[in-house]
Parts: sequence; structure tokens; C-alpha cells
Amino acid sequence: MTDPVTAGLVIIGDEILSGRTQDTNTATIAAWLGDRGIQLREVRVVPDVEAEIVAAVNGLRGRYTYLFTTGGIGPTHDDITAASVAAAFGLPFGRHAEAEARLRAHYGDETLLTPARLSMADMPAGAVLIENPVSGAPGFQIDNVFVMAGVPKIMRAMLDSLEPRLTGGAPVLARTVTCVGKGEGDIAATLEAVLAAHPRIGIGSYPYFRAGGSGVSLVLRGTDEPALAAAAADLADRLRALGADSAVVAISPRSE
Amino acid sequence: MTDPVTAGLVIIGDEILSGRTQDTNTATIAAWLGDRGIQLREVRVVPDVEAEIVAAVNGLRGRYTYLFTTGGIGPTHDDITAASVAAAFGLPFGRHAEAEARLRAHYGDETLLTPARLSMADMPAGAVLIENPVSGAPGFQIDNVFVMAGVPKIMRAMLDSLEPRLTGGAPVLARTVTCVGKGEGDIAATLEAVLAAHPRIGIGSYPYFRAGGSGVSLVLRGTDEPALAAAAADLADRLRALGADSAVVAISPRSE
Repeated sequence: MTDPVTAGLVIIGDEILSGRTQDTNTATIAAWLGDRGIQLREVRVVPDVEAEIVAAVNGLRGRYTYLFTTGGIGPTHDDITAASVAAAFGLPFGRHAEAEARLRAHYGDETLLTPARLSMADMPAGAVLIENPVSGAPGFQIDNVFVMAGVPKIMRAMLDSLEPRLTGGAPVLARTVTCVGKGEGDIAATLEAVLAAHPRIGIGSYPYFRAGGSGVSLVLRGTDEPALAAAAADLADRLRALGADSAVVAISPRSE
Repeated sequence: MTDPVTAGLVIIGDEILSGRTQDTNTATIAAWLGDRGIQLREVRVVPDVEAEIVAAVNGLRGRYTYLFTTGGIGPTHDDITAASVAAAFGLPFGRHAEAEARLRAHYGDETLLTPARLSMADMPAGAVLIENPVSGAPGFQIDNVFVMAGVPKIMRAMLDSLEPRLTGGAPVLARTVTCVGKGEGDIAATLEAVLAAHPRIGIGSYPYFRAGGSGVSLVLRGTDEPALAAAAADLADRLRALGADSAVVAISPRSE
């Protein structure tokens, strides 16, 4: 077993903390990383305040293989992520020539390239750009920290462009076993028995309550496909023996 | 001006970090707190690992007026929040008599009250219960930390039941000014001028890209209603003078 490849994520923006905006970037990034064998281990949501961004970036970048940030790289007064990341690393902050060239190419007309838009080319010294095929202004990488836009469509495009720069580990595979007719409290001992019998497998237990019936989704995870299949079949058998309706319903190539 | 009333939030669960489950509790809690004049300042999402839960709880509970947690209080092996919160406070962990009584009343039939379900009555010593009108098993409060369920419907019911225990501050009011026809980079200087002219108001700038057109939503926030109204009108006027279509479109009693 090699060491797992891990990641942290810092979501930057008052709009998430006020409840105005529903964050979806966490789920997108988590699934994208999981597909590549990179385990998201921690997320922090912080406001547009430099000291808070610095504390989150410096608190996480040493703990995980990679650290991603989203938000705060636009042209307005509340976009302080780039300056804050420079402060976190103790790096000079200023105009990035290649970023400026990309902005000039994107906007074309000089009158559109306002001082505010040009300020999106201000980055920590030594930043490596992250392409933005949607709206021109690039993100950037410093060391193991990847600074991306907050708008989901732009964030996703930036993330896709990072694929060649990231080294993943063994993908975590998942199978979901459904359980209907028995609740979590009825099957808890069964789950522990399956965990004991299949030590390389983890199980997450997620009750659901829906129109049409409630039940429990049991998500088995592991990196070894035959071991995972055996554990899922064993669990479904044991649940049926308890009197539940149970089946292995989802076989996913990605982390669930 | 009195000190603001603040809150932190710890979201506990591998299912959020794997991307399997889209968290919605953050937005619900943020808006609910904002309505009551309590400002959510930081969120951490951590896995079902005791050391991580302890670190997050102890890292945040001293920084904010209140700390909320969601997730990990069910009956299965991955529900370790209650034991972890006891560890964070250095408190004994064991059966809570009133919680046990509520579970017995909820399940009625002794055969349904399995050892796993009964384990949901294990809490840190001195815990004050949080009612669960949906599924019986209570949450709990220790000091300024409120431990709630992760299932959104149950979490919301627990949150509503907390209203009498929380003391809010001055609610943060919000108005949204729309801007169509000019982008963030065209209006950044105008936003700074409005901030300078209305020092008690904050402005968040949120570009949107939708079928039917893109634009910028400008969310003004403050606790003084006349000052907020004046700033919103001033901003809309200045944007129209720049050639944008602009209007004050949303007047909200709650933080946005």
C-alpha cells in the first residue's frame, strides 16, 4: 500500500456563509478528485477576510497532498484571494506578465480592459497559470495550492485543465447496497459483522426518507474490486437473512 | 454598537467529502441564523474520524458565540459524533437517562429498541437535549455547542426547537441591486465609490451567467435600514449613469 493521495479545499466567500448561495463546488471537486484516486479530507468555508483566508490556506496546505481554493479571484473589491494567498506564502504580489497577456487577448478592445479587470493579472510571484477557457481571467498554482474561480462553470473548466498536473492514487471504488424494511438500528450489528469479516472495506450508512418509502443506503468503499464485490454480496445476503429487501444496486467507477 | 453574535459550523460526514451527498445544511443554517442576527463565520467539513471532529470542535467553539454540528448521531458504527464531542470537552461519555426515556417512548415496542438504537442515548455528561420531533433520537447541547442530526429534515426541526436558547444580535439586512449590460470589471470603481460614500454598508458582487442573459447581482448588507436604502438607491443611480440597466430588485428581511 502506498500512502493515500489527499486534498483539502477552501471555499472563499461571504455569499456561502450568509446562505445566499448554495455551494456546489465541494461536491463537484470531491467527485472529480475521487475519480482520480485523490481523497478530499477536509473543507473550510471562510469569509472574504484576508486573515481568515491566510489561516485556512496555511492550516491545510501542509496537511494534504494538494489544496484547492475556490472564489474571490474576480475584479471587484471583495476579490482578495490572490493577495491573501501571496500573504500566506510570504511572496511578493504583483502583475503577472503572461496573465496580463491573456487578459489583453481575451478582451481585445483596450477600453474593455479596465484597471479592475487588469487587476486580475495580479498574483503571487512565481504563480503558474490555470487556464480559464470560459471568461479569460486565469487561476493559478503556487506550490501545492491551486486557486480557482468560484463560479461553478468556470471552476469546473479550470479543474479539468489541471488533470495533467495532478498525480492520483488508487481510485476508491464504491458499491451501494440498499436496505428496505429494516432501519439503521436493526442492522447496525450486521454492519459491524461485515466490517469485521471484510477488513479492507469501509461502510457508510445513510438513511433516507422519501415519498414512496424510506430505507438505508449502505455505501461500501475500497480499492480492491474483488474484495469490494465479495463484501457487497455478503452484506446483501445477511440483510435478506434479517428479513430486509436488499440488493447491490449501484456499481460505480468513482468514489461515492 | 454591540459585539456581533457569531457562529461556527462543523459538518461531519464522509458522504459530503466523497461527493456522494450534496450538503444543504450549511445554507439552511446560515439563512436561519442570519434571520436571527447571528452571523455564520466559518464552516468546516470533516470526516467520521474522532481526532478530526475533536480538532474542529475545539478549534471553533472558543472563537464564536455558538458552534453547531450536523451529522454522525445515528445508531451505526460510523456515528461517532457524540463520543467525539465528549472527548473534545474531556467529559465522561455514557447513557443519558432522559434521552433513554425519550427513545423508549418513541419506539414503544422493546424489540424495536435494539442496543444500536439505545446507543443513541449515549452522550457527554451534562448534555442538555435537543428535541427531535421527526425520528425520536435527540440531539444535545454542551456549553455553546449544539449537536444536531445530518438528515436535513431532522436538522431543520432541531434548529427550530433551539430558537428560545439562542440570543441573536442586530439582524443583517440586505438589498440586491441588479446590473445588466455592464460586467464586474466595468463597475468595480463605482462599487468602491459607493462603499466610500456609505461606510456602514458592505457590498458583495456576484456575477451570474444564465440562459436569457448575464449580469451582476450586488448584495448590499447592513444593520441600519435607512442607510441601506440610501446606499442601494445611490448604487442603482450610479450604475444607470454608467449605462447599465439597474434596479433595486430585492428587499429582504433576512441576511442574503
